[in-house]
Amino acid sequence: MARDHGDGLAAIAGRIGVVGSVALNLVALVIYLRGHFFSSVGTVVEKRPSKKEELAVVAPSCGKPSVLSDSMISLDHGDPTMFETFWRGPIGKSAMLVIPGWQTMSYFSDVGNLCWFLEPGLEREVRRLHRLIGNAAVEGYHVLVGTGSMQLFQSALYALAPPIADSPISVVSHTPFYSSYPSVTDFLDSRLYRWAGDANTFDGDNYIEVVCSPNNPDGAIRETILKSKTGKAIHDLAYYWPQYTPITQMLAHDIMLFTVSKCTGHAGTRIGWALVKDKQVAQKMNKFMELNTIGVSKDAQLRAAKILGAVADGYEFQLTIPSGGDVNLLFHYARRQMAHRWRALRAAVAVSGIFSLPGEVGGFCTFTKDMVIANPAFAWLRCEKEEVEDLESFLREHKIITRSGTKFGVDRKVVRISMVDTDEAFNIFVDRLATMK
Amino acid sequence: MARDHGDGLAAIAGRIGVVGSVALNLVALVIYLRGHFFSSVGTVVEKRPSKKEELAVVAPSCGKPSVLSDSMISLDHGDPTMFETFWRGPIGKSAMLVIPGWQTMSYFSDVGNLCWFLEPGLEREVRRLHRLIGNAAVEGYHVLVGTGSMQLFQSALYALAPPIADSPISVVSHTPFYSSYPSVTDFLDSRLYRWAGDANTFDGDNYIEVVCSPNNPDGAIRETILKSKTGKAIHDLAYYWPQYTPITQMLAHDIMLFTVSKCTGHAGTRIGWALVKDKQVAQKMNKFMELNTIGVSKDAQLRAAKILGAVADGYEFQLTIPSGGDVNLLFHYARRQMAHRWRALRAAVAVSGIFSLPGEVGGFCTFTKDMVIANPAFAWLRCEKEEVEDLESFLREHKIITRSGTKFGVDRKVVRISMVDTDEAFNIFVDRLATMK
Repeated sequence: MARDHGDGLAAIAGRIGVVGSVALNLVALVIYLRGHFFSSVGTVVEKRPSKKEELAVVAPSCGKPSVLSDSMISLDHGDPTMFETFWRGPIGKSAMLVIPGWQTMSYFSDVGNLCWFLEPGLEREVRRLHRLIGNAAVEGYHVLVGTGSMQLFQSALYALAPPIADSPISVVSHTPFYSSYPSVTDFLDSRLYRWAGDANTFDGDNYIEVVCSPNNPDGAIRETILKSKTGKAIHDLAYYWPQYTPITQMLAHDIMLFTVSKCTGHAGTRIGWALVKDKQVAQKMNKFMELNTIGVSKDAQLRAAKILGAVADGYEFQLTIPSGGDVNLLFHYARRQMAHRWRALRAAVAVSGIFSLPGEVGGFCTFTKDMVIANPAFAWLRCEKEEVEDLESFLREHKIITRSGTKFGVDRKVVRISMVDTDEAFNIFVDRLATMK
Repeated sequence: MARDHGDGLAAIAGRIGVVGSVALNLVALVIYLRGHFFSSVGTVVEKRPSKKEELAVVAPSCGKPSVLSDSMISLDHGDPTMFETFWRGPIGKSAMLVIPGWQTMSYFSDVGNLCWFLEPGLEREVRRLHRLIGNAAVEGYHVLVGTGSMQLFQSALYALAPPIADSPISVVSHTPFYSSYPSVTDFLDSRLYRWAGDANTFDGDNYIEVVCSPNNPDGAIRETILKSKTGKAIHDLAYYWPQYTPITQMLAHDIMLFTVSKCTGHAGTRIGWALVKDKQVAQKMNKFMELNTIGVSKDAQLRAAKILGAVADGYEFQLTIPSGGDVNLLFHYARRQMAHRWRALRAAVAVSGIFSLPGEVGGFCTFTKDMVIANPAFAWLRCEKEEVEDLESFLREHKIITRSGTKFGVDRKVVRISMVDTDEAFNIFVDRLATMK
């Protein structure tokens, strides 16, 4: 998943961000001077801020700065900025959110719900979308909301770990595993749970197995590989959406994690959700959320509800433009874009001749009702050239920042590369890749 | 602080929320039926959702349900719904937030900033507000954003704890201390830090002392009481705003925590911030935020920026209505409301005759430039009647839910009561209190 963070993130970000930062600082300076000029408290200044000034105050950031053909290209994180084009289309209007100043002030959203801070509107849209896509069961499940799905991952570890134990429960996952699982499990050095590495080499009956399917980083379809009756599982289904993989069945695992980030591309909204079968587990996950952040931002939840609602509306009301097309059908639009990118990447790999990718896999998608090839959100690129021992370093010399296989529990000849960045960054990446010999 | 959670939260919430929940369920049912009616995927339904239906989809929750004179009144949490009246006033219009569907999709806000997920607009408004109020130094400080200030509290524990140590560092605070400090410190049973109780009885040179000033629960002005050169401090200044206490000096501690929740009343937005002097500490706190939630919702940050901006605009542009008054001056308005409530509470306590409150304290406020009495966000109520040994239970028999002194490290004859709930809940509370003999 692109819901990632690396050790050198600030450093890398700093390097590619100098231009953007200078621009932002200039804006800040202008606004500071304006504020300074009018800031004499006690003096009556009749001037109201103009519409333009009001807008300036809430102008959002624009994410990473644009890239040029000779820029450093960061494909380390799966920043899903590819989706922005879709949301700038006609559907964008129905996805606009308005929040009056007096709204959503209370901590509480629904005092009668197990998850008392979950906005009822978001719960409705989550259930509606799953019913529409058919990727996960919602009947009989509790819906929990998190600040991204990785917070819910931590809440699941907290809920599944035995409260009193001689030693922490082992958390394992089949290699290659998402690079954040080890660091997020271990950063607080908890006595409740600890990272124990590759599930294939784990020996024991008490464990939490994390299953990411389609798998980050390699896109593989996964199931639990450990089979003890006392073992627990967390299913991270961030990528189980039709743009990445055929929806082949309605999953109904004990704990299933999803995120708006990878579903619609709104990573900055930081909303994830969990579908949880067991009430006691759900209650304990919720307790984690209370202690960790006293719930989840309502504004972010309303945003997510609006976005998910617009996606479902696009399908349910078939909001196509007169000329037809998929301009309001998120999963069809995004699948087409992803398929286009994968073709471009495979062509570049063929031209270069020194790389390899996992083989194509496909299946019948019960949502789109056709046979499709999977388009993973990451390329899991291996270098077949003997001299290149450290592919991350090799690509960095070509000004492409990727994430080494070592962070996923495997070797240095393979890297993970985001396939969901902007068109410009992606195009520069494949152009450069094709020239490598 | 009202940024709280108790063990029986879901249970209590359930009890007081039955009416609200039924109402919400009816709404959900209607919307579900509507969705069901139009949900035949594949069938072309020409109807677009009407404006009304679109609004229904994102209708926000309305927090806790209304209360009647015989209702159970929950003043356990400091849910700052008192402020809603202010934001429904003329200033509300300028505090309205609009977010187009395509905005804030990236994980990144400012790649050149140490806190790369901090919206530049929020940082500007935070610095602007502190300059306006004069309660905390911002020059030379790093600004970090959190999902509420308790997440930043945890990030500070992570940053200040020695990474390699034989035993966890002790976290202490002067009694009575905020009831969440022990549970939030210990819930993951970290080997990095552990709760060690009252700072007054702590013996040692290595510790993290948490100083809450004005103090939750009793409103006292606090400083560190331990003086070792190797000890660390976290200053929780959630209530250091003019409506609660005179601003007597511009504080400049190493780590200072604030929250929108207690400043403007927007608890549901879940935005807190830290002012941090040391760059390495700020970097490590930021690392915690990356690992815990991969940053903070941009939508929530934009909301907070808009709200804080409206507050500062209210003062800088003196947005008063023609007849004058404080209708656009948050701190003046809220101070007047708080003072009114405190007078009502003290009168009820005098009429009853069985309770006592901490004595009034005051001082010269450098922001409002007058002598003022403090109006703490919580009443720290003690029962002087011998037969009443457990005040929380006693008040619960009168259908008033409060938080026992035992959760703050002291005895059962005292409770903490929120002073920032709705007018209706507060009025019922003081009426009942006056009748207790």
